[in-house]
Amino acid sequence: MKFRYKVSVEYDGTNYSGFQKQKNIKLKTIEGVLEESIYFFSGQKVKICASGRTDSGVHALCQTIHFDLDKKYSNYTIIMALNYYLRGEDIVVIDCQLVDNNFNARLSSKMRYYRYIIINRKYPLTLDKKRAWHIAKELDINLMNEAKLFLIGKHDFSSFRDSQCQSKSAVKTINDILITKKDHQIYIDVSAKSFLHHMVRNIVGTLILVGQKKIDAIKIKEILAMKDRTKSGANAPAHGLYFLKTDY
Amino acid sequence: MKFRYKVSVEYDGTNYSGFQKQKNIKLKTIEGVLEESIYFFSGQKVKICASGRTDSGVHALCQTIHFDLDKKYSNYTIIMALNYYLRGEDIVVIDCQLVDNNFNARLSSKMRYYRYIIINRKYPLTLDKKRAWHIAKELDINLMNEAKLFLIGKHDFSSFRDSQCQSKSAVKTINDILITKKDHQIYIDVSAKSFLHHMVRNIVGTLILVGQKKIDAIKIKEILAMKDRTKSGANAPAHGLYFLKTDY
Repeated sequence: MKFRYKVSVEYDGTNYSGFQKQKNIKLKTIEGVLEESIYFFSGQKVKICASGRTDSGVHALCQTIHFDLDKKYSNYTIIMALNYYLRGEDIVVIDCQLVDNNFNARLSSKMRYYRYIIINRKYPLTLDKKRAWHIAKELDINLMNEAKLFLIGKHDFSSFRDSQCQSKSAVKTINDILITKKDHQIYIDVSAKSFLHHMVRNIVGTLILVGQKKIDAIKIKEILAMKDRTKSGANAPAHGLYFLKTDY
Repeated sequence: MKFRYKVSVEYDGTNYSGFQKQKNIKLKTIEGVLEESIYFFSGQKVKICASGRTDSGVHALCQTIHFDLDKKYSNYTIIMALNYYLRGEDIVVIDCQLVDNNFNARLSSKMRYYRYIIINRKYPLTLDKKRAWHIAKELDINLMNEAKLFLIGKHDFSSFRDSQCQSKSAVKTINDILITKKDHQIYIDVSAKSFLHHMVRNIVGTLILVGQKKIDAIKIKEILAMKDRTKSGANAPAHGLYFLKTDY
């Protein structure tokens, strides 16, 4: 008999080579560290499955994973035991639920939420250094809000897809993009059932061109229609991106 | 002729041995790094004066300093030049004004504002690790708000004063203490014309005892009356404290 655990994880991605385990076993990954802590606790070598495999430097406020164990533990035991073995790491378990064996952290997702944080001010960052993208030139949020409208809905996002992307189709549906500003801080909140590789960072990198008045808002519509990654903006830095949560 | 510059500085205090220069010159301090950057820029060895000399690990969103130079520079030049020499550090100049020679960053202060940040949740911190004090046991904010009332106003704060404090008098006037909670985050905002050494952190460490129901709110009144540092709570950790700003 197998018991399936749905576990919510928060992490600071700065010191990890992304979520996914790498061929180079010297590279420390979120997945590797989590699987090791599960092994230390349970004695079982498990393969965890995550809602979204974040890149190196990307943070998560609530990443969802699932894994199976032979034994039934209380949610409290799982949380406390994993956090014990995660001490010293920048990864922490914030929730655990015993779930049906049909649940899948990746495939059962109904909606995923990402936030990109920009600090828009002249002088460099101190406290937010590895927590946000610093953009010195003032961004016009109104123009960015015009541009984002072309991206919401079902489109072929080939122009915002990384060349390494393994998704069969480039057609995705963006549920919403919310751009808000408070003092120097700009949040770009993007939600969709699923994303292509680097899609959020490529969208941010392109919306920024609109905010800097390097391209017109309408240009986003043209870039989308061209279905060509070379036409969109640069991939925004990983350290400004936060995986917020997944709805199931 | 001397030109006096009032400069606003933001810093992440984590990697510095506090603001004040130490006898051990190997210890990196905010003051030392700032004076060095002023020297690299102007060729002058200046002694800077700060509004508040923060302890090791304490952060600042807007620390005010002043110093004199023989030459008149534009505010823009000072900001850009100092930030150039501060690159790689966790210190940044966010403002500069040429001021009257009577201005003194420490003595001209009318009000100083500090914020203490607590993350009140069961599981350890990741992204806020060096940015807030983690308290696992739930705090009762209502009780803390009752207790703070005894501290607002003019009192002898000997019970909340560090033994190393050099202030002549322990009588200080707290303008206000505001305790607010949003999700897991608790802010304790304290303002006063001036503070004793470790006063904010000692107040926070004692208010926490009330929030944890280890002492009654009224006990704060008694502790204050005893004028004895050994009667109050532990000094709250430095990394939760932020020097917000000074009014002149």
